[in-house]
Amino acid sequence: MAVYTEVSEDDLTHLEAQYGIGQVTSLKGIAEGVENTNYLLAAGTSTYILTLYERRVAASDLPFFLGLMDHLAARGLTCPTPLRTRSGAMLTELAGRPAALVTFLEGVWLRNPNADHCWAVGAAMAKMHAAATGFALTRRNALDHTGWRILGDALRPDAERVLPGLGPLIADELDAVSRDWPVGLPAGIIHADLFPNNVFFLGEHLSGLIDFYFACNDVLAYDLAIGLIAWCFDDAHRWNAAKGKAMVAGYQSVRQLSAPEYAALPVLARGAALRFLLTRAYDWLHTADTALVKRLDPREYRDKLAFLQTVKRPEHLGLVGS
Amino acid sequence: MAVYTEVSEDDLTHLEAQYGIGQVTSLKGIAEGVENTNYLLAAGTSTYILTLYERRVAASDLPFFLGLMDHLAARGLTCPTPLRTRSGAMLTELAGRPAALVTFLEGVWLRNPNADHCWAVGAAMAKMHAAATGFALTRRNALDHTGWRILGDALRPDAERVLPGLGPLIADELDAVSRDWPVGLPAGIIHADLFPNNVFFLGEHLSGLIDFYFACNDVLAYDLAIGLIAWCFDDAHRWNAAKGKAMVAGYQSVRQLSAPEYAALPVLARGAALRFLLTRAYDWLHTADTALVKRLDPREYRDKLAFLQTVKRPEHLGLVGS
Repeated sequence: MAVYTEVSEDDLTHLEAQYGIGQVTSLKGIAEGVENTNYLLAAGTSTYILTLYERRVAASDLPFFLGLMDHLAARGLTCPTPLRTRSGAMLTELAGRPAALVTFLEGVWLRNPNADHCWAVGAAMAKMHAAATGFALTRRNALDHTGWRILGDALRPDAERVLPGLGPLIADELDAVSRDWPVGLPAGIIHADLFPNNVFFLGEHLSGLIDFYFACNDVLAYDLAIGLIAWCFDDAHRWNAAKGKAMVAGYQSVRQLSAPEYAALPVLARGAALRFLLTRAYDWLHTADTALVKRLDPREYRDKLAFLQTVKRPEHLGLVGS
Repeated sequence: MAVYTEVSEDDLTHLEAQYGIGQVTSLKGIAEGVENTNYLLAAGTSTYILTLYERRVAASDLPFFLGLMDHLAARGLTCPTPLRTRSGAMLTELAGRPAALVTFLEGVWLRNPNADHCWAVGAAMAKMHAAATGFALTRRNALDHTGWRILGDALRPDAERVLPGLGPLIADELDAVSRDWPVGLPAGIIHADLFPNNVFFLGEHLSGLIDFYFACNDVLAYDLAIGLIAWCFDDAHRWNAAKGKAMVAGYQSVRQLSAPEYAALPVLARGAALRFLLTRAYDWLHTADTALVKRLDPREYRDKLAFLQTVKRPEHLGLVGS
């Protein structure tokens, strides 16, 4: 959202030498990614993204994130690719922070995606799942059931300050989702945050995926469930079955869901909604609301959960025929 | 500092048609300019800055700002130049805001400028003063003596919350600067905010000036005084005479200061320090301090003022020989 760490001209000279990219001709802090400091950096005839990793990202996770982008790009997925320094490293240090320089991706994220866009996102997600196969490193999902319980416990004393009834809602949902959570579904590396702002389009054509800083090993169909709750509700938080059907169809155009995966979509979506309700409520309590920082409204996920509580079978999502 | 206003894909389609710039291939909110929403926008083979004007900029001032940039660029100054829509307008509307699309300027602003850079800034400022001659519109300096009094009065009840002794300091300085302020000095259009973040360099070469949103009609030497207090103190807020001398020499390499202008530099610098002390103290009181918004410390200008109170003649600034 904002620049945290300043980069000096000495830092830039160091960077130019490390990467052999020629003279830096522009450096603009960009207002994307709440977690890290991001600059759009032009050098020679190319443009890059320079990321300085701030405290919210564990340094021990960086080899996983950078290695994954490198692995995916080498398998043809369009995503940011880490450059290597002259000594061959993807991770460096700049201005006292772990840092990486990655390729710039053309495209614009959509503020108003339609069902065709959702189809393309489903297909791109399935391609990502396939391309990630064989990646050597693993990363546990820090926001799995255990993480949800921890967040839920931390929220309990202040939950009513966020939304009336939030405390009991979280407790009930944690119980319900834990009870019904499927076991034995195909797992692999998932993006885990494939919201509209992380998918670029050029005109009607999906041009790439970004921001792999929540990627982890988990159930593949859970990634699709996150996509459904992120893309397939309208602005009034009402389910849009046409978009949901399109996203599932797009996914299956690349990778067929098994019957148990398909049957599990409702509870996976409910878990996904709970996960984002928890982090939004937490951020709501721990972020000051100023003109410069727009807090994301936790009510959005309360409303989505209220709908998903009524969904007992995939048919209730209107996915039949997909 | 952050993106305030979102731009949708429909807005972009509208923009493409209005300006005939081809397909937009990238749009990144940039963390520069606290006053407005700024995007770095790529379309066709070019890059632009898209600015949406927020509430802190008076819409009635926009013809002055945009016209000035157009006037300066036409006279060879390297600064952002407003593009014109197919119907010839420099000002348009986008996402419910007044908006302009300007050319992108290469360069990086310096975090650690040296005396040579200060010389170049002085010379560029004098060229800007000369190039602005003949511009048809005028704009009163909203932060002149009257503006200072208004800000000082507004601050008084809370001044001690900002800094101990700030209330009396402001009152005394307002009186002293008003009493000693020079009359009859050459006037024209000044930048009025030529801080390091508004001057770009490519390597050691000054590549352009940006952010004309404080430009106004005022005493030319006052602009130089602002430059002195903005560039010529070190990180510990101590005056650096070598930088000051270099900036004045750079300015005079293009435009010779008259004897009264030169003699007035101390009081003009004191007024400039008071002006930034006032706005920083005001912003200090009216901006929440979060990890995402770095408030600028008002103590910096208290310290600079303390030094300038001891400066009775230009010689005390070490400018002799310039």
